Amino acid sequence: MASAAKKSNKVKVAVCGASGYTGLELLRLLAGHPGVEVAYASSEKSAGMTAAQLFPSLRSRYDTLKLEPLDPAKAVKAADVVFTALPHAEAAPTVAEVLKRGKKVIDLSADFRLRDAAVYEKTYGHHPAPELLKEAVYGIPERYRAEVRKARLVANPGCYPQGPILSLSPLIEAGLVSVSGIVIDSKSGVSGAGRSATVDNLFAEVSGSFKAYKVLAHRHTPEIEQELSVAAGLKPGKGVRVTFTPHLVPMNRGILSTIYVQGEKGAGAKDVIAAWKKAYAKEPFIRIYPEGQVPATRDVNGTNFVDLSAVSAPDGRIVIVTAIDNLCKGASGSAVQNFNLMCGFEETTALGALALVP
Amino acid sequence: MASAAKKSNKVKVAVCGASGYTGLELLRLLAGHPGVEVAYASSEKSAGMTAAQLFPSLRSRYDTLKLEPLDPAKAVKAADVVFTALPHAEAAPTVAEVLKRGKKVIDLSADFRLRDAAVYEKTYGHHPAPELLKEAVYGIPERYRAEVRKARLVANPGCYPQGPILSLSPLIEAGLVSVSGIVIDSKSGVSGAGRSATVDNLFAEVSGSFKAYKVLAHRHTPEIEQELSVAAGLKPGKGVRVTFTPHLVPMNRGILSTIYVQGEKGAGAKDVIAAWKKAYAKEPFIRIYPEGQVPATRDVNGTNFVDLSAVSAPDGRIVIVTAIDNLCKGASGSAVQNFNLMCGFEETTALGALALVP
Amino acid sequence: MASAAKKSNKVKVAVCGASGYTGLELLRLLAGHPGVEVAYASSEKSAGMTAAQLFPSLRSRYDTLKLEPLDPAKAVKAADVVFTALPHAEAAPTVAEVLKRGKKVIDLSADFRLRDAAVYEKTYGHHPAPELLKEAVYGIPERYRAEVRKARLVANPGCYPQGPILSLSPLIEAGLVSVSGIVIDSKSGVSGAGRSATVDNLFAEVSGSFKAYKVLAHRHTPEIEQELSVAAGLKPGKGVRVTFTPHLVPMNRGILSTIYVQGEKGAGAKDVIAAWKKAYAKEPFIRIYPEGQVPATRDVNGTNFVDLSAVSAPDGRIVIVTAIDNLCKGASGSAVQNFNLMCGFEETTALGALALVP
Amino acid sequence: MASAAKKSNKVKVAVCGASGYTGLELLRLLAGHPGVEVAYASSEKSAGMTAAQLFPSLRSRYDTLKLEPLDPAKAVKAADVVFTALPHAEAAPTVAEVLKRGKKVIDLSADFRLRDAAVYEKTYGHHPAPELLKEAVYGIPERYRAEVRKARLVANPGCYPQGPILSLSPLIEAGLVSVSGIVIDSKSGVSGAGRSATVDNLFAEVSGSFKAYKVLAHRHTPEIEQELSVAAGLKPGKGVRVTFTPHLVPMNRGILSTIYVQGEKGAGAKDVIAAWKKAYAKEPFIRIYPEGQVPATRDVNGTNFVDLSAVSAPDGRIVIVTAIDNLCKGASGSAVQNFNLMCGFEETTALGALALVP
Repeated sequence: MASAAKKSNKVKVAVCGASGYTGLELLRLLAGHPGVEVAYASSEKSAGMTAAQLFPSLRSRYDTLKLEPLDPAKAVKAADVVFTALPHAEAAPTVAEVLKRGKKVIDLSADFRLRDAAVYEKTYGHHPAPELLKEAVYGIPERYRAEVRKARLVANPGCYPQGPILSLSPLIEAGLVSVSGIVIDSKSGVSGAGRSATVDNLFAEVSGSFKAYKVLAHRHTPEIEQELSVAAGLKPGKGVRVTFTPHLVPMNRGILSTIYVQGEKGAGAKDVIAAWKKAYAKEPFIRIYPEGQVPATRDVNGTNFVDLSAVSAPDGRIVIVTAIDNLCKGASGSAVQNFNLMCGFEETTALGALALVP
Repeated sequence: MASAAKKSNKVKVAVCGASGYTGLELLRLLAGHPGVEVAYASSEKSAGMTAAQLFPSLRSRYDTLKLEPLDPAKAVKAADVVFTALPHAEAAPTVAEVLKRGKKVIDLSADFRLRDAAVYEKTYGHHPAPELLKEAVYGIPERYRAEVRKARLVANPGCYPQGPILSLSPLIEAGLVSVSGIVIDSKSGVSGAGRSATVDNLFAEVSGSFKAYKVLAHRHTPEIEQELSVAAGLKPGKGVRVTFTPHLVPMNRGILSTIYVQGEKGAGAKDVIAAWKKAYAKEPFIRIYPEGQVPATRDVNGTNFVDLSAVSAPDGRIVIVTAIDNLCKGASGSAVQNFNLMCGFEETTALGALALVP
Repeated sequence: MASAAKKSNKVKVAVCGASGYTGLELLRLLAGHPGVEVAYASSEKSAGMTAAQLFPSLRSRYDTLKLEPLDPAKAVKAADVVFTALPHAEAAPTVAEVLKRGKKVIDLSADFRLRDAAVYEKTYGHHPAPELLKEAVYGIPERYRAEVRKARLVANPGCYPQGPILSLSPLIEAGLVSVSGIVIDSKSGVSGAGRSATVDNLFAEVSGSFKAYKVLAHRHTPEIEQELSVAAGLKPGKGVRVTFTPHLVPMNRGILSTIYVQGEKGAGAKDVIAAWKKAYAKEPFIRIYPEGQVPATRDVNGTNFVDLSAVSAPDGRIVIVTAIDNLCKGASGSAVQNFNLMCGFEETTALGALALVP
Repeated sequence: MASAAKKSNKVKVAVCGASGYTGLELLRLLAGHPGVEVAYASSEKSAGMTAAQLFPSLRSRYDTLKLEPLDPAKAVKAADVVFTALPHAEAAPTVAEVLKRGKKVIDLSADFRLRDAAVYEKTYGHHPAPELLKEAVYGIPERYRAEVRKARLVANPGCYPQGPILSLSPLIEAGLVSVSGIVIDSKSGVSGAGRSATVDNLFAEVSGSFKAYKVLAHRHTPEIEQELSVAAGLKPGKGVRVTFTPHLVPMNRGILSTIYVQGEKGAGAKDVIAAWKKAYAKEPFIRIYPEGQVPATRDVNGTNFVDLSAVSAPDGRIVIVTAIDNLCKGASGSAVQNFNLMCGFEETTALGALALVP
């Protein structure tokens, strides 16, 4: 089908790192985008295969898209916009090349999410291109839409941070909840761990079990703290601290975060919901639940939705439950949303599907 | 969103039985159909709720679609085309009402799939409207496209039969395989059992286990035999007999059928694949695997694809492996495909998505 | 095999409510108990079948154990000790009958867990036998071993409460953690919801999804608060308050609780672990993890173990992660442990198995 | 606990390859064996850890069992009986060393299952010790009990072959079914693929999907054919041919095989069941289902049971459904059963547990 389309008017894109799960999700979403042609796709391990040979789910759409070892110059030459779905530190050189050639890049790695290189280095090690940090826009359109529209480099956010940031920021800005003592208990499907062969993520290790991991030591913590500090008007990295515990759920997709905050000045779930309704009145991807109802991950899987809910405790504590799809809104869906904004497409293009239930 | 669309040019449809899994799948697919407005939806148990209240996955699209107890007259009045996603025997009265009022109906129940009322009665019990059987078109477009285009009543096929019928029919027609001794070993996800509360389908009964069920006694057997008999030029019900064993897989969606046939006159997998390529050259939903590769259910889930593969045994036996999504191509996807043909839409409308992997 | 054993020296037991998951788990465990003969088993829905007909996993061991509609008098007559694995409110009449006849009973329902009838009534409704509350012993041997040994009526604890009670009580007693602001974020396998037919617990509703439920409204909350209040030396029901959120994990068994507490006087994970080691030095079923390691539910499934771990946050908060099997230590394993104590068996009898991994 | 036991009277065993799933299963089962002390355990990748550190499920039982790189001489010195749970070709050198030192070995690899070295070499490549083949006893006690009792080298059978061999052999011997045209459609849990890190067996690749693999090309085929040929009185390797298709089920454990055979001289399911009852009258691990009932894998998981069932088709075909646990009866359970016979223990020692359901 793709081959039959008139390609000349389409935006040509490159997917660097097409054999991981975020790469695959990009290909899945872009197959439904009427204004895009995938002109380049890289993979080290599966070079030589077509995308459809590697992923039979892509048969009939990517039968001729050849995977090749990453060559940043070639990617930039082939494409108008580059998606880098590469491991952290490996993305930066390609990002730099794209910018040097005057094109646009959406980086799905962690390389440009943290504004402070020192925080990056404490978390991920040596930063390969700190000089580009000031240009990077943190790619949550619901928080930075105007900046994303004009960006050349969008740092696509991490999967865990989005639910907490989107749920808490308007509440912090409105002074409805305390910025101290925030507990974020998150549960993720296994695709968040990527497509690398490791014993820990084998089916027989994960199925029928549930565990916490990297307790108080997950790399997404500074990203959450940075953005909540922005919301609080505090200097990033020196402001809000959260207690963050990720867990592994025996399911493919989805993140559900249960967040415990203290209401300020008597604020409860009603006020929280009202604040969300005000902040997100026009957002196409934010769905706010009535008090007493809480989301399940299946209802957002495969979609770009962020589902938000809140419940009041008698002692003034508020429990917030939020769900996203870690691969879609948590990664490639956001990336397409950012792409749409950067290229002048309708923001929801290729992101209109409802979740596959059951 | 739906409410903002210009509705006047759209085909109005009714979904009778909207709270089961095939009803939900219809709503999911139709949400992406630019030429459709869902004007009526029925449910006995969830009457009074909106579709989006019952199924949070539908939030933002079906927020105002009220579920009401089934009233065939009201459904027909509200809609141009009616989908009946009701239990067998319960569908027929609504089907009759639709036809009486001169409108079109796509029946997802078993009521009009078997051409011979006697076979129906042996399988399902008393037939509520045998006089309509002769008008019904068996709704596999890849076999009966011309008839579907003109049909007023399409009997949407069962989930299990489609893989066997679509894989075997062209081979039988070409005389490549024997019509005797066919073994069909099928494995289905649990959504095939429907959304009724039963102990057998509880998560804790199914998860971590695999079983056969209704061995040699499944109701879809006569449907398979009917269509293979047609392919063989034999009188339906008196022709081809198959040995059919369904199994339950601890997964939500998908049917994989492993089919054992004897090649005729030295025919092997190569000939089988060539016959498929010839028969299905222009089919948008049939994907044929190269020899040596076999499909997995995940690659068709959420899609209308039928994936076909074949392997040769040294003794002349051929093993065919075929996969579909039981709820989509196996039910509601076919129904939308039939709808498109009956209403003059492009056949693939609303059915273009690739599978959600992982 | 059982029939061949010399039965005369064995303790005869009755399992009232043998067709639910806790009943099945009792039968599974008791099959390995050399000193027990199951002399009576009841089930309303499956009366007339043998236990092995209902549950093929029991074949070869319970082939002649007939299920019959509950008759408390008959149960007491047949058995020396009665297990009541019945819904709350339905257990009390049988419990009363057992006590009247001078025999012993281990009640797995909620009926005698809460010491204060008023708290019970607020949580579960009318209490059917409040006069028996004062005699009931709360059946966590690690907290009440001496009392259990002498008890005639043991109120077997709920599944969720055990991890929090066993992890927090020694810390509260030692003054290591604050009793205010405790957050308990628990995640349970689906068997905890029982074996009743409900749409919510169908495989296709649960698989591939994760959700919170009964947020701040779960019936086990008062049970946790009661026992933590005892640990704190506060009047039950008027003392410690916790924020408790249960979640549903797509797996059969296991509960993992992530507990957030504030350390007192600089206490951290090291102190917590030391306190556990002291409190539980001789406990056969408590396993304490070294700092930095946290349990997964699979490692306790099918066992009576309680796995405990703790991690320190920089701000003085301590994260406790604890895992049990909801059906075994969380229900029937505890019941057998209590039984062993009440009848003079070695406490670990029939409870020695390691987890089935993977 | 183990350390407290009187060790002097126990049989000392070595587990070579303790960090794979069959090694883990051996440790799990042997922990419940009153006559065994595990004196040696090897692992290349996890050398230096204790077994309980590697597998937290073993905590409290194997806390001091150090894993060390395989040293056959050391294993033989430490142990009276050696279990080799190593990859094929890697097991043979240790097996040879054990025999040289006059001790006993149970080999869970494929190295000594095929009596004909030529068949081995076609299937697995160069055979490292063909001279030992004639001494090896194929370790299915239900078929070769007398030989196992006297064996020094037992070749523990593959996981897939056991169900087909145990179900079909008595039928072939009794002339009840045809030896031609046998179709074996098997479905296995993922633990059968081992504990090596591969993308194909990642949770996110397997969960929610079902597939066939190695269609007509699986290495267990010659093993099945060898033993069915023995039953038929035909020269192994030149006799019975079967059509065997393995499939992967998204579950941890269990194999269900659906077997299609042609009854001879009017034989049907009744005759099949009668033949099994006669052949297996005294077998502790064979459970035969009444006609019309078929097993599910969950009912054998964690056990050494082989569940057998049969259903008659009108055309003389018989469908046999059989279930085992691939890691227990399919590997380590059989190994312990063989060990018991070789060392004079009661055959069921340490194998008495019922399945963990749900």
